[in-house]
Amino acid sequence: MNYLTYLPVFDKLTKSQQDILTKSAFVRKFSKGEFLHNGSHDCTGLILVLSGQLRAFTVSDDGREITMYRLFERDICLFSASCIMNSIQFDITITAEKNTEVLVIPSEVYKSIMDISAPLANYTNEVMASRFSDVMWLIDQVMWKSFDKRLADFLLNEANIECTDTLKITHETIGNHLGNPREVVTRMLKYFVNEGFIALSRGTIKIIDKDGLAKILD
Amino acid sequence: MNYLTYLPVFDKLTKSQQDILTKSAFVRKFSKGEFLHNGSHDCTGLILVLSGQLRAFTVSDDGREITMYRLFERDICLFSASCIMNSIQFDITITAEKNTEVLVIPSEVYKSIMDISAPLANYTNEVMASRFSDVMWLIDQVMWKSFDKRLADFLLNEANIECTDTLKITHETIGNHLGNPREVVTRMLKYFVNEGFIALSRGTIKIIDKDGLAKILD
Repeated sequence: MNYLTYLPVFDKLTKSQQDILTKSAFVRKFSKGEFLHNGSHDCTGLILVLSGQLRAFTVSDDGREITMYRLFERDICLFSASCIMNSIQFDITITAEKNTEVLVIPSEVYKSIMDISAPLANYTNEVMASRFSDVMWLIDQVMWKSFDKRLADFLLNEANIECTDTLKITHETIGNHLGNPREVVTRMLKYFVNEGFIALSRGTIKIIDKDGLAKILD
Repeated sequence: MNYLTYLPVFDKLTKSQQDILTKSAFVRKFSKGEFLHNGSHDCTGLILVLSGQLRAFTVSDDGREITMYRLFERDICLFSASCIMNSIQFDITITAEKNTEVLVIPSEVYKSIMDISAPLANYTNEVMASRFSDVMWLIDQVMWKSFDKRLADFLLNEANIECTDTLKITHETIGNHLGNPREVVTRMLKYFVNEGFIALSRGTIKIIDKDGLAKILD
């Protein structure tokens, strides 16, 4: 099976463009926790997620993290090929949150086709606009939403992604997603325990009152 | 003079595409304070700044503002034509900060050419990547930088844009740029006065020690 057909724009390319992409693309596996891309010095290539889960985040000068967005099956990661655009002047780090299989399209191959193919360039535009929308949502969250709302939203979202109400996640990891120190996370989680929304045990957070958590978001 | 030649990509379009753009584009003037674009319900068109200055910002549910970026002469504003891309799922408001003259390219005209022109689609990509970089810088600022640094940076930047050390700007306006309440701005400005960096009088802020302000940024 040719995974490139996952690209909604693949059938709008010429036969020879399709062939070039097909010949150059290759499958790579990343283990949970492994780095796919580490800032602008890398130019890994355009990545199409086949299975698993990726996390894109930024890191402050002193090592603090905040998650920009997640990528799931059939999502495209553009910033792992940020060298294809001069105007991308920022660093994003991408790691595998689960064992992940991806299709890599080498940056120079993708760029050579994008330069001459309006369909591929417009598709790239839409992918970037979609990530831009994620980041604008993030700004809205960090600027205006209180931390209890952001944490409740994160827990409900994680339960949804993992299809379980018992989350195996450390307070520090949550802090790295939300851009807050571990102690701030621990304090708010304890407040959620007192309210009867969750139960804490070593390394896990069990959601026991989903509706209660959801009400915080109102 | 055809202002469309300000588009670096104009000479890569076909003659007929150039003609279509030239016939449909028109000049519009906006007075200081006037709205050019107000969220996604507007689809004003692609805007090329001929003179003046624009401010792009987002507004929270309860009316608080934060500046995303500014646009100056020859800058392109893409989000005033956000309807040309389905994946732009956020609202940006754009106002004139000075009396401003712009060239408007109607959204549907721009889109019809971008759909078939790889050069125009790739140019659009670069413009979006450039705004994306601005917004990533903003996230870095609001997440990790202390407010004294952000305010010092803002004052030095304003002095640079206005070519004067005497800024006519209210504390509330600064708050709207930086996403902070007026009182927080006033408190930090008073601290800057005590340090001898600035002097305050009714409606103006005079920078008296640029080096001192710049040192805060280290």
